[in-house]
Amino acid sequence: MTPVDCAFLEETVEADGETDCAARYLAVRHDSEQLCEPLEIEDYVVQTMPDVSPPKWHLAHTTWFFESFLLKPFLDGYREFDPKYNYLFNSYYEAVGKRHPRPQRGLLSRPTVADVMRYRHHVDDAMAELLGQLKGGDVEPMSRMLLGLNHEQQHQELLLTDIKHILGANPTAPIYAAARRRAAAQGEAEPLRWLEQPGGVQWIGYNGEAFCFDNEKPAHRVLLEDYRLASRLTTNGEYLEFIRDGGYRRPELWLSDGWATVQREDWRAPLYWRSEGRDWLEFTLEGLRPLNLAEPVCHVSFYEAEAFAAWAGKRLPTEAEWENAAREQPIRGNLGGAKRFHPAPAPATEGLSQLFGDVWEWTRSGYAPYPGFRAQAGAIGEYNGKFMCSQFTLRGGSCATPDGHIRPEYRNFFYPDQRWQFTGIRLASAA
Amino acid sequence: MTPVDCAFLEETVEADGETDCAARYLAVRHDSEQLCEPLEIEDYVVQTMPDVSPPKWHLAHTTWFFESFLLKPFLDGYREFDPKYNYLFNSYYEAVGKRHPRPQRGLLSRPTVADVMRYRHHVDDAMAELLGQLKGGDVEPMSRMLLGLNHEQQHQELLLTDIKHILGANPTAPIYAAARRRAAAQGEAEPLRWLEQPGGVQWIGYNGEAFCFDNEKPAHRVLLEDYRLASRLTTNGEYLEFIRDGGYRRPELWLSDGWATVQREDWRAPLYWRSEGRDWLEFTLEGLRPLNLAEPVCHVSFYEAEAFAAWAGKRLPTEAEWENAAREQPIRGNLGGAKRFHPAPAPATEGLSQLFGDVWEWTRSGYAPYPGFRAQAGAIGEYNGKFMCSQFTLRGGSCATPDGHIRPEYRNFFYPDQRWQFTGIRLASAA
Amino acid sequence: MTPVDCAFLEETVEADGETDCAARYLAVRHDSEQLCEPLEIEDYVVQTMPDVSPPKWHLAHTTWFFESFLLKPFLDGYREFDPKYNYLFNSYYEAVGKRHPRPQRGLLSRPTVADVMRYRHHVDDAMAELLGQLKGGDVEPMSRMLLGLNHEQQHQELLLTDIKHILGANPTAPIYAAARRRAAAQGEAEPLRWLEQPGGVQWIGYNGEAFCFDNEKPAHRVLLEDYRLASRLTTNGEYLEFIRDGGYRRPELWLSDGWATVQREDWRAPLYWRSEGRDWLEFTLEGLRPLNLAEPVCHVSFYEAEAFAAWAGKRLPTEAEWENAAREQPIRGNLGGAKRFHPAPAPATEGLSQLFGDVWEWTRSGYAPYPGFRAQAGAIGEYNGKFMCSQFTLRGGSCATPDGHIRPEYRNFFYPDQRWQFTGIRLASAA
Amino acid sequence: MTPVDCAFLEETVEADGETDCAARYLAVRHDSEQLCEPLEIEDYVVQTMPDVSPPKWHLAHTTWFFESFLLKPFLDGYREFDPKYNYLFNSYYEAVGKRHPRPQRGLLSRPTVADVMRYRHHVDDAMAELLGQLKGGDVEPMSRMLLGLNHEQQHQELLLTDIKHILGANPTAPIYAAARRRAAAQGEAEPLRWLEQPGGVQWIGYNGEAFCFDNEKPAHRVLLEDYRLASRLTTNGEYLEFIRDGGYRRPELWLSDGWATVQREDWRAPLYWRSEGRDWLEFTLEGLRPLNLAEPVCHVSFYEAEAFAAWAGKRLPTEAEWENAAREQPIRGNLGGAKRFHPAPAPATEGLSQLFGDVWEWTRSGYAPYPGFRAQAGAIGEYNGKFMCSQFTLRGGSCATPDGHIRPEYRNFFYPDQRWQFTGIRLASAA
Repeated sequence: MTPVDCAFLEETVEADGETDCAARYLAVRHDSEQLCEPLEIEDYVVQTMPDVSPPKWHLAHTTWFFESFLLKPFLDGYREFDPKYNYLFNSYYEAVGKRHPRPQRGLLSRPTVADVMRYRHHVDDAMAELLGQLKGGDVEPMSRMLLGLNHEQQHQELLLTDIKHILGANPTAPIYAAARRRAAAQGEAEPLRWLEQPGGVQWIGYNGEAFCFDNEKPAHRVLLEDYRLASRLTTNGEYLEFIRDGGYRRPELWLSDGWATVQREDWRAPLYWRSEGRDWLEFTLEGLRPLNLAEPVCHVSFYEAEAFAAWAGKRLPTEAEWENAAREQPIRGNLGGAKRFHPAPAPATEGLSQLFGDVWEWTRSGYAPYPGFRAQAGAIGEYNGKFMCSQFTLRGGSCATPDGHIRPEYRNFFYPDQRWQFTGIRLASAA
Repeated sequence: MTPVDCAFLEETVEADGETDCAARYLAVRHDSEQLCEPLEIEDYVVQTMPDVSPPKWHLAHTTWFFESFLLKPFLDGYREFDPKYNYLFNSYYEAVGKRHPRPQRGLLSRPTVADVMRYRHHVDDAMAELLGQLKGGDVEPMSRMLLGLNHEQQHQELLLTDIKHILGANPTAPIYAAARRRAAAQGEAEPLRWLEQPGGVQWIGYNGEAFCFDNEKPAHRVLLEDYRLASRLTTNGEYLEFIRDGGYRRPELWLSDGWATVQREDWRAPLYWRSEGRDWLEFTLEGLRPLNLAEPVCHVSFYEAEAFAAWAGKRLPTEAEWENAAREQPIRGNLGGAKRFHPAPAPATEGLSQLFGDVWEWTRSGYAPYPGFRAQAGAIGEYNGKFMCSQFTLRGGSCATPDGHIRPEYRNFFYPDQRWQFTGIRLASAA
Repeated sequence: MTPVDCAFLEETVEADGETDCAARYLAVRHDSEQLCEPLEIEDYVVQTMPDVSPPKWHLAHTTWFFESFLLKPFLDGYREFDPKYNYLFNSYYEAVGKRHPRPQRGLLSRPTVADVMRYRHHVDDAMAELLGQLKGGDVEPMSRMLLGLNHEQQHQELLLTDIKHILGANPTAPIYAAARRRAAAQGEAEPLRWLEQPGGVQWIGYNGEAFCFDNEKPAHRVLLEDYRLASRLTTNGEYLEFIRDGGYRRPELWLSDGWATVQREDWRAPLYWRSEGRDWLEFTLEGLRPLNLAEPVCHVSFYEAEAFAAWAGKRLPTEAEWENAAREQPIRGNLGGAKRFHPAPAPATEGLSQLFGDVWEWTRSGYAPYPGFRAQAGAIGEYNGKFMCSQFTLRGGSCATPDGHIRPEYRNFFYPDQRWQFTGIRLASAA
Repeated sequence: MTPVDCAFLEETVEADGETDCAARYLAVRHDSEQLCEPLEIEDYVVQTMPDVSPPKWHLAHTTWFFESFLLKPFLDGYREFDPKYNYLFNSYYEAVGKRHPRPQRGLLSRPTVADVMRYRHHVDDAMAELLGQLKGGDVEPMSRMLLGLNHEQQHQELLLTDIKHILGANPTAPIYAAARRRAAAQGEAEPLRWLEQPGGVQWIGYNGEAFCFDNEKPAHRVLLEDYRLASRLTTNGEYLEFIRDGGYRRPELWLSDGWATVQREDWRAPLYWRSEGRDWLEFTLEGLRPLNLAEPVCHVSFYEAEAFAAWAGKRLPTEAEWENAAREQPIRGNLGGAKRFHPAPAPATEGLSQLFGDVWEWTRSGYAPYPGFRAQAGAIGEYNGKFMCSQFTLRGGSCATPDGHIRPEYRNFFYPDQRWQFTGIRLASAA
């Protein structure tokens, strides 16, 4: 989290005053709880696969982050809420001590949801106290608070993807939220165009003065050849053609590991698609509904993205290609603030659309350290660097990403077989 | 379930009238709900291992039994509560159709606990209607109702053992019920005596006119040699000597499969024992507390029972030996009605003590059909017979068995590695 | 091994003289090697599943038995062939020390087959020396030698079953031995008759003065009701009717564990049956050939035997019923000495046929200690007793059992899902 | 394999004549057989883990390659040796049909080694005939023959690594080859120096006219910053310091997946190291011997290489950095032709040493397609591209790589947890 710049922090604090800083903290914290409002108590408890965490775990873990990295080191006289919580709600910080095994998070009925809410209020009260004491020069705690808020925002996205998995695994297909707006009509998708992107030596990585994660640094030069990007995301309709052309039965289209996964898991369509006779339904947070062919395909793995690209005679972009094209674009789109929580058809536009929001876009780039990358010392250094192996980078945020949390340089990463996130495809090709 | 005799049924119904029959139904149903009263909503949901079912599943499954085997076939115009419940709450009846996989019961947040309680009330109302219509000659439905109530009582015991596992797996060791009475003092156990039992040709199996399960039939003759039974159950203190003598590290004491289990599972003591320095604690439904050496050892597997017997130079009794000795004894003891839910030290007595209640007693007998056994036709015939393989028989009920549910002929059965039930040891030897 | 009686031993040695004793030893040892003669070096090495051992392992392990239990304790100045062999060729004797894991026997290319043959000659030479020194009163070594020879004979049967599995798992279906005689014609099977067997109190278990295994002792009384036995074994033709009637698709016919196995393993026929269009072939030690409907069905598990019996409206016999009927029958049949190594159609006869040889007959009896059973102290006591759990007893020997190795009291035992032995079905029913 | 240029092929054939082309074929084929000469028949059969193939499988599979891709399509009247071999010896070519499962290669005793040698001679004879017919313009078959020979050379290295694993897994630690020369003395390693490498825009990838694999193409430009490379490989002595400093017990040094592997596999040292009291031995193809501290550390995974680099405060080079530095170096070193089959201490030199031979050097680069990469159509296109996921690139060849098979552009690739290859470490750092 090192990148937070002192000058920026002082300025923020001076300009807004303590109150605003505390207000921003509370706003982010409130968002997490609001996302859980449609849930029944029982929904907070279960873990439908090891990748998923129970919602109450997310609510407690983000709280534990503030308690461990801010309150304990920086608030004099802070009283720990419950010493067992350090064991229960540490996610993966080896330096902080032993922790409850991840695949067993769904075996815990206690602490209850009410206990977790009490924990949140306890920590929020103490954070108010701490924020009231901080001064402009308190770089380390301010820097950690920014990290804590961004961390909580990441878990807001995970809350949505995990809630979707919990409800989607249920044979009764429960509805999280009734459709807030009329679902997009079954219209035609915008035509796909190929937009030329000039190559050359380009700067990649975050170079600004606001917050970024350590994995976005340092900014550095790369050499790109000229290339072309699809003007919009791949649609359900296009993906359905791939399926109907035998996509899931043709090994020549797949990476070797991907083909093994297709056979082992008996994949025949994206996660959440359900065939019903000759028709396809899609489970969404608004319940089961007919597949909308104009919407972006979602919940596909890297393997599926690669196979689709091979079938289409194209390829996935590298993350440098993606970032290079996105750097000049406005950061707007179908993000979490719209509360649609489902990707939407591409708008009519001349240029690149859907770069931000809708779905995270798989790139062809393995998740690796940028040249000169150094993880921070101590537990906080475990945030990103130790995962730089065997995963692939995704860019652009999704319909579940909080507004203001995304940037062109933002690097998300998942294993190539994972598909419970809002992940999709944008094609690229040589110029 | 066949054994219910017509004459008996007519008599019962005539003597008590409809009301009493309905009252008995409601009393049993109420007991299940009362056992869950100390739970938080979250406790109803989780499944800590495949053998365990979430409490809300038990509450729904027992209800499904009445709906499937009584209301649907016998109550005209019965309206099914929810067609999906047949898939969700069928336990193992192949003839009734596909069902939700057992190891995934803990992945279901819905139906909620409130939904399940509505289901119970819906079925209870319909059962009241059905019971109001039944006449003395309606043998099949009356017979099934008796089976349904005994089935629900079996699940009352499972509710307690599964709640214990759910709370016991939690690092916070929650308390189910505060001690209702002063825990037994750390006194001396009663001395162990060896009581002679004469052999000869003896009748085994149920031969009465009240309810029994089909696996207790037909009564038949066996030839027993003279033998001796321990006057009381094996205590924690005796079992601790076995541990301290290297019991869990000496392969020569163990069955081959048992030794493999000890090593694979890293067993070092009964389930729920926790070592703390040189002391031992035991997790109980009243929370963690120091091990009471005079209490019967509990939560041991058949493998452990066999190894202990080998160490002691004795053996386990056969189920015929156990039943032969128990047949003349009064059916009383530390059963579920006492609401202690933990085994108690043996009382001072001249004869055999603790035969009923406290812990289920492992026998050396594989669970097999009695000569002439025939399972009933149809789904209800799946109740017992199809499990007669690779399991061992246990006798006598436990501190979690409902009063009135146990008899000398009652045959419980578990796999030799299972130990989450209230299972213990009574030794036997040659005369 | 305890049962060998002193008087008997002295008599044997006095009557036959040392030479004959040594000759008998050599004859048994030679038989093992002769069984391997048709093999290629490569066939000696592989292990096609954990239950199977490589043939060279059998040849070495039986040799290790003599070295460990006779030469080391009883032959002064004996020089161990190779100290590593104790680790490599101990099968399951915990008391003898650590050993190479069973499922990894097929990972060992060394010692080579030539090494193993040198080991055999080294031990055979030393055994000749030891046998030359023994006197009539040397009960313990003589008793162990008898056990060692019977042990080697058991491994002769395992050699054949394991060789069959190794060749049968090979896509090229190699032939072990060309048919020694014209295969049985595709004639009609003898008609099946039901032979009454009177019950009453009967003696079961070995009570003679020759060799028997410890698990056949002590002889004891059991009470049998009258019963009926099938006059011959179940044939391939009868079993094929079961298959064609949906036997492998009807859960109501199966034990619960059996049905789970059918689905997990995708069983559709006995092991070694291969469907080819509408026809069935059977892999035998003479290669692939059309299924002979008059031959006994072979290579079925206990689960399949139980399901077949349920389908036929009959049951399997208990081991006491089997032994009671077999006790008066002559011990002859299609045993290993005939070198057919495949079951043969039943001969025409008035009484019970095929009791000995052809296939081991599954009984409904779990493998358990006889009343009063005590295993011997020390490593040799691990021979039988520690396996008395979760297995079922089989009786009568098979076409792979050495002549002279079988008796009415002989108890073989396997897990209910195992079917690579020559195992088959004889039905029983109530009188 | 597309890159083979027509002009080059014509020239080769014209210049050398048919005979030389056939001679080269026979020489490569002979090398494979010679590597197996020290083996016993039994050594050819076993498979000690799924990554390992039995030596006879390698000998047959390389033969199948020529039969499938050259003889069947190009030699009129070619008679297939055995139709079953296509199923048995296809490695992973989906387009060629079904194949025997890789983890079951060690379950096949047949075809025997003698059968495989007959197969080789049959194919070699036919290849001689085919090569006698080929003309300068026969680009496709000549191109495939070059690929087939390079493929066979790759399997020569695998033969050595798999033989080492087969012998190393054996408790008797057999010797493959007695030391051909005096083992390197336990001297001091050459001092480690850091050599500056200038960055800038550099060409990477194969751009010549001789043979290369498709994954080395197309040549393309990359932008490198200035960097430094270690003058020699990391030694056993340096790696031992890492171990003694708690390297295998400190999670902060490891990638998250790596730490999980360390714990699951209980890694405490490189594969083939054996601790004996306070000393370390190393299993080599010459048998067990004391660890030589001056030799390069070998048989480490990518995870271990990364953890070592983190501990040393350095990093691994990217593959572009490695290739950029190696391009101007002479291709010589401790390669397979030296028949040492074990890495050797670095020689005294001013510049970079040990770039070629000794051990494959892990890079920090995921194995990914070069910009513009296209796999060939058909089965041969499965050679490289479908593996470009979740693996890391290694450079420089090893002591088991055939002379003439390596070049600066050569890209080897393995999963980050694999360590049975001759894999080691060269450190890099920023300039």
